[in-house]
Amino acid sequence: MTSLSARLATSGPIDVSLFDSRVTTGFDGDKADAAAAMVTLGEELSDLQERLFAQARAGVGTQRILLVMQGMDTSGKGGIIRNVAGLVDPQGLRITAFKKPTAEELEHDFLWRIEQALPDAGQIAIFDRSHYEDVLIGRVRELVPPEEVERRYEAINDFEQRFVDDGGTVVKCFLHITPEDQKERLAERLADPSKYWKYNPGDIDERLLWSDYAVAYGIALERCSTQTAPWHVVPSGRKWYRNWAMATLLAEALRAMDLQWPGAEYDVEAEKARLRAS
Amino acid sequence: MTSLSARLATSGPIDVSLFDSRVTTGFDGDKADAAAAMVTLGEELSDLQERLFAQARAGVGTQRILLVMQGMDTSGKGGIIRNVAGLVDPQGLRITAFKKPTAEELEHDFLWRIEQALPDAGQIAIFDRSHYEDVLIGRVRELVPPEEVERRYEAINDFEQRFVDDGGTVVKCFLHITPEDQKERLAERLADPSKYWKYNPGDIDERLLWSDYAVAYGIALERCSTQTAPWHVVPSGRKWYRNWAMATLLAEALRAMDLQWPGAEYDVEAEKARLRAS
Repeated sequence: MTSLSARLATSGPIDVSLFDSRVTTGFDGDKADAAAAMVTLGEELSDLQERLFAQARAGVGTQRILLVMQGMDTSGKGGIIRNVAGLVDPQGLRITAFKKPTAEELEHDFLWRIEQALPDAGQIAIFDRSHYEDVLIGRVRELVPPEEVERRYEAINDFEQRFVDDGGTVVKCFLHITPEDQKERLAERLADPSKYWKYNPGDIDERLLWSDYAVAYGIALERCSTQTAPWHVVPSGRKWYRNWAMATLLAEALRAMDLQWPGAEYDVEAEKARLRAS
Repeated sequence: MTSLSARLATSGPIDVSLFDSRVTTGFDGDKADAAAAMVTLGEELSDLQERLFAQARAGVGTQRILLVMQGMDTSGKGGIIRNVAGLVDPQGLRITAFKKPTAEELEHDFLWRIEQALPDAGQIAIFDRSHYEDVLIGRVRELVPPEEVERRYEAINDFEQRFVDDGGTVVKCFLHITPEDQKERLAERLADPSKYWKYNPGDIDERLLWSDYAVAYGIALERCSTQTAPWHVVPSGRKWYRNWAMATLLAEALRAMDLQWPGAEYDVEAEKARLRAS
């Protein structure tokens, strides 16, 4: 059976605006079926994450995961943190939402703040936006000279390769929605006072540059989808499918690690005797 | 109806060794009833936490929560993070497990590393062990001179008062188990290879000092249970009750904040028009 990762992975030139946001690749069922599947996936993820964490705690594992999420506003980054990351022990998570860089961050190379948010051994780090912003909004808004944007694609590939060499697994996901999906979701936020805080007038400014972003995403996905760290295009027009797909991609990454419970670093029988005597 | 917080709060002299670890104060039911109650509590916690987070994001709230957990090994700090903290959006959590201080940490005042782990506005910080270690193991193991331990109780009270003045709510919980409860749980860890990693031979060394720790806890709880930041003794001999009680204490703290969805900082109708035109 082909993995979902293989089915959603992209390589070579890509035009994200041609993708369907509402397909349910790899999932045979509807919303209710997905809810049931998430329960099972949640149990598996919880078990695998604990093994990953345990290995590092016992000092026998350097494995770690970096989940990178990119996508236009309302594509679902926050929802995935709540509904997918929320399935595992929060103690093993390291979540960072990257905003507009601060003055201090701008004084350093664009990867400086990223380095600091990488997972320790045993952790799953989740990036809500990432170093890719520096070749997305950086390119669209011309925040840096074109030659600096050019330099960054290779710098990112080198950076991710070093992370993988260090025991890391990178799962990169472009959450694909259409302008129509976004319009509907922004309208929902403006129609519901409990969602006002999620809306920002700047969202429309970015929306007006949709086709420029599509071009920038196409270049980034082509240049930075590598063998060691491929990009995935996750159809995100249906929230239930998006959550199932993200949980599945995470589970596949964990399964591939062949995680075992660490053995005892002490004499189990001797400790049982000490405990009995205590 | 008296709150659970009021029922479990302690003030004045206290001998923790006299408490029953298996009572189910404030809960009328059994394990199955608690599981059902946790579903309802989980939904409420999730909603309240999102409001807390939203207020801070919208720049209209400085409220934040610090949940401090202390207790002997196996009292359930990890289980609470998984089962109670796991009920809310992990994006709003800041979890720190305090270990033996590093060389760098030892070069600073004992509260230095604590300051850095405090919650930002809108966050719920969870301390798995805390600054109280510095008057617990610090006292029992005589890691610092007695006069320095003495100084710390007041320093802690001042520190917590400053945090509360800054919009914080402190929920301090001593997870009470008996030496027999611990013996049973350590034996379980030594009997199950998937739990070996949770066991450390040093656990027995600390266990042998149980009565010294009981004295140190008694003093810390008496000296540092203040009006603004009371200590709670949470009976933790039954895991299901312990989780319910911790979820309830957290919910009570959040309810007391009277959290509202923040209003729009922009003109909703104008934005609807911009969206339609986009």
